[in-house]
Amino acid sequence: MDFTIRAATLEDCKDVARMITELAEYEKAADHVEITQKDLEQDGFSKNPFFHGIIAEVPEQHKSKDGHSKVGYSLYFYSYSSFKGRAVYMEDLYVMPEFRGKGIGKALMRKVAQLGLAAGCTQLNFSVLDWNKPSLDFYFSQGCQDVTSDLGYHYLRCEGDALEYLAQGDP
Amino acid sequence: MDFTIRAATLEDCKDVARMITELAEYEKAADHVEITQKDLEQDGFSKNPFFHGIIAEVPEQHKSKDGHSKVGYSLYFYSYSSFKGRAVYMEDLYVMPEFRGKGIGKALMRKVAQLGLAAGCTQLNFSVLDWNKPSLDFYFSQGCQDVTSDLGYHYLRCEGDALEYLAQGDP
Repeated sequence: MDFTIRAATLEDCKDVARMITELAEYEKAADHVEITQKDLEQDGFSKNPFFHGIIAEVPEQHKSKDGHSKVGYSLYFYSYSSFKGRAVYMEDLYVMPEFRGKGIGKALMRKVAQLGLAAGCTQLNFSVLDWNKPSLDFYFSQGCQDVTSDLGYHYLRCEGDALEYLAQGDP
Repeated sequence: MDFTIRAATLEDCKDVARMITELAEYEKAADHVEITQKDLEQDGFSKNPFFHGIIAEVPEQHKSKDGHSKVGYSLYFYSYSSFKGRAVYMEDLYVMPEFRGKGIGKALMRKVAQLGLAAGCTQLNFSVLDWNKPSLDFYFSQGCQDVTSDLGYHYLRCEGDALEYLAQGDP
């Protein structure tokens, strides 16, 4: 099947918001999604954007059962390793279920890798849920390393009241 | 002890490079450090910087045994959660051993939290080695959550030949 990989624009935010919800359902995390189309428009397409996006699109005649021609996306941003330097972080890589197995996910990831290398990055980093074996198998087949299992790096997070309290400091 | 927390400037890169090496030695990863003072100058202090820095500085009369008055630092950059939106990632938080236990690390982290909240971020994320119990205890005491242990998120990485191969694609 033909498909196109291209940079996301403001007009894609509605479909990206839809696919973020689909991804969250797959990750059993639908309750955690607070992002809206408007957030994506503001945060990704104003000055100093917080992320960049890539869209996978199929021709009209191949659109999904529900009528969608935007069938996959990736969100990424540039980051930094104090040991290795410039890096790119792939926040999401998603392809709608009925379009999987056609190379679309790999093409999206390839585009992030190309953009990262072009910007001088030496690492492409991302995170995966440990029960998501199909995704892990795909990433390992691409030569990726599990830095948590191999080196012991754990993700930590401060949010909500803890973040507010940390910022306020002692009275 | 008095200390000052302030934004890093180009002139701090020599000391940041020194402290990155110290941190890597503590993390038993000295062999993995490829970053140089020049890299930090280019990547953090040109247009569209890849990171921002914060410095902890003590007065001259309290400088270290080796004569250093810049005794701690944090590197951070803005990131994005497709579920929750704007986030800040704390790449490093380091205080020289002889200056620990004086609240300097907490003050550095507080500054990152303040800057994150001011930029509309709802999460402060970072990673910690699972054997680094003193750091983990400190972060848990601040209300941080281990997202790897609690939710199963693993860090994955593509670099070197694997990254080049991914970007080139099939012949």
